[in-house]
Amino acid sequence: MHMTRAQRIASGCSGADAVVISNGTSPFLDPVFWYLTEQTSGTFEGSFAIISKDGSLDVVTSSLEGTTAKKGIGNVHIFETRDDRERIISELLKGCGRIGVHGHSMTHSSSAYIKKVTGAELIDVSSDIADIIAIKDSKDISEIRKACDISSKVATRIPEMLHVGITETEMAWLIDSEMRRNGGSGNAFETIAAFGPNSAEPHHRPSAYKMIKGEAALFDLGSKYGMYSSDLTRTVFMGEPADILRRGYAVVLRAKNVGMEKMCDGAPAKDADIAARNIIDESEFKGMFIHSFGHGVGMNVHEGPSVSARSDDILKEGMVVSAEPGIYIPGIGGIRIEDTVLITKNGAEALTEFDESYTVI
Amino acid sequence: MHMTRAQRIASGCSGADAVVISNGTSPFLDPVFWYLTEQTSGTFEGSFAIISKDGSLDVVTSSLEGTTAKKGIGNVHIFETRDDRERIISELLKGCGRIGVHGHSMTHSSSAYIKKVTGAELIDVSSDIADIIAIKDSKDISEIRKACDISSKVATRIPEMLHVGITETEMAWLIDSEMRRNGGSGNAFETIAAFGPNSAEPHHRPSAYKMIKGEAALFDLGSKYGMYSSDLTRTVFMGEPADILRRGYAVVLRAKNVGMEKMCDGAPAKDADIAARNIIDESEFKGMFIHSFGHGVGMNVHEGPSVSARSDDILKEGMVVSAEPGIYIPGIGGIRIEDTVLITKNGAEALTEFDESYTVI
Repeated sequence: MHMTRAQRIASGCSGADAVVISNGTSPFLDPVFWYLTEQTSGTFEGSFAIISKDGSLDVVTSSLEGTTAKKGIGNVHIFETRDDRERIISELLKGCGRIGVHGHSMTHSSSAYIKKVTGAELIDVSSDIADIIAIKDSKDISEIRKACDISSKVATRIPEMLHVGITETEMAWLIDSEMRRNGGSGNAFETIAAFGPNSAEPHHRPSAYKMIKGEAALFDLGSKYGMYSSDLTRTVFMGEPADILRRGYAVVLRAKNVGMEKMCDGAPAKDADIAARNIIDESEFKGMFIHSFGHGVGMNVHEGPSVSARSDDILKEGMVVSAEPGIYIPGIGGIRIEDTVLITKNGAEALTEFDESYTVI
Repeated sequence: MHMTRAQRIASGCSGADAVVISNGTSPFLDPVFWYLTEQTSGTFEGSFAIISKDGSLDVVTSSLEGTTAKKGIGNVHIFETRDDRERIISELLKGCGRIGVHGHSMTHSSSAYIKKVTGAELIDVSSDIADIIAIKDSKDISEIRKACDISSKVATRIPEMLHVGITETEMAWLIDSEMRRNGGSGNAFETIAAFGPNSAEPHHRPSAYKMIKGEAALFDLGSKYGMYSSDLTRTVFMGEPADILRRGYAVVLRAKNVGMEKMCDGAPAKDADIAARNIIDESEFKGMFIHSFGHGVGMNVHEGPSVSARSDDILKEGMVVSAEPGIYIPGIGGIRIEDTVLITKNGAEALTEFDESYTVI
């Protein structure tokens, strides 16, 4: 039997009498609200989605977005005032002693509000929800493929865009523009463009630093398509890089490939991290892989499963994860190579296209 | 005596023994973390800023962003593992019986974590923090002015960009590109481009709908400059609009001007909303102004004060707020005109530039 998304959440959070998904003020909006309602529009600040034990879905929103809400899935309840909202929520949750909340995406204020309105015990069902949304349905996968296609297409154009003297900020803007021009609906995250020593900071924010011949240039980019994300990193060099960077690149690429070989339905997620980390730690770059191998990608650019050495997650067919080893040499530069991959029965299919030919330009 | 930002928060949240600001997973990041650390880079997921009663600031972050953290303000504590983090936080908060949290921006999971680690009582100091960050210092104002200049410059170019047949998505992309080209560091929020009947939904997300002669075209845009936001809405018409839209435009413009006249240091924020709403409700568009007159603008595009009919907030010199009345005629179109304004001793200074000459193009 085909289950709706709300039914999947109700059945996956069986310890709760109901599950409440809430949006605070932007950007404190929960993508699960859009996953459930299948909305492609709206902000829905201060709105709630309530999933009953039987899998029915109620949406509580203000008159501001009532028209939009009715285009989506769920029984829409519209409030005009705060008192209205409280009455509607209290009615919908009547008799629920244990209410599941999505603690990773719900604000403290929202959970305190639900507690006050209902008097119920709140249980954090974040990990149950993470397990459910980690396994993508065919609609999810088709949208993620499109997001990945856009990011891949833009990545192959980096050599045309990059030139000596261009700033990180300008490159990030060119990449963002190209993603939009290719049909993207926005950034899945703020594009990272990091040159030279800046690339040794994994989360460097683009600055006025200018491209210098021979330095590493690291680009971490991801277009959205509709509500879905993609995630891809390429490190390129303008002209021949210093030998240490060339050696580092080879190690990171090997780590990515070896890690991806460990991925398939049923494999512990940590195996990919451990295998890739071993490659790096057996090299001269020991200890320089300072983050985990990967994370789930979906409506959120960071979601479950966790592909780290300490993860207990098991990879399953239909999961979409990043594969992104890197090394960071303080004062010199960083190298990261990342693809978004789909876990299949027998392995991992890269959804982003990696073309090594443009590594040295 | 000059107070640091951390000291201002410590003194404004005097009921708490310490205040904890936390970042979850992106986008659940608290701008107050950047306000305090004066960082212009980094993601700082899973990081904490702890303000002691004496106004000192401690920053707890992972080794991933340790290098970046040390460029900002605060005593940096770096953790390698979750146990490390727990030990550091527990040490920093030792003896605190009442811990203030920023409930509007902290996730339920983070607050549950702080409660577990410390055993303290948590008190939501969101409204105290909102009061503090609502009053901008000279550095804040100078950055917001730049963000507003960029948005204004782009708005005046709308007539060049708009043509019959262009889609909402394409217009949003052109606007975003222009904001970046003019020095913006990104979008303060997803740009709204809404044509014809779509403009009757205040938060419409850009679609493939094409521009038709005579229909309303509503653009709500805001560039970031560094960490700061701006917010501006313009409604334009290609060719002569239907008479009802022309009449609506005149009413909304008058409502904006009358509302702004009610704004100055010491005035109740609600006065602006009530005055503007009276103008609209006395016209044929009674009941069609379905949101509040304005909101604070800073690092967040939506922050305090609330400029609504139900607000108890008092405007103060140094606050920056939006002034944005609108009317929404279902099936026909919407009109909204919005400026970002600075509250001064004697009035309200528009930081965005409104040029009516491009209303009918």
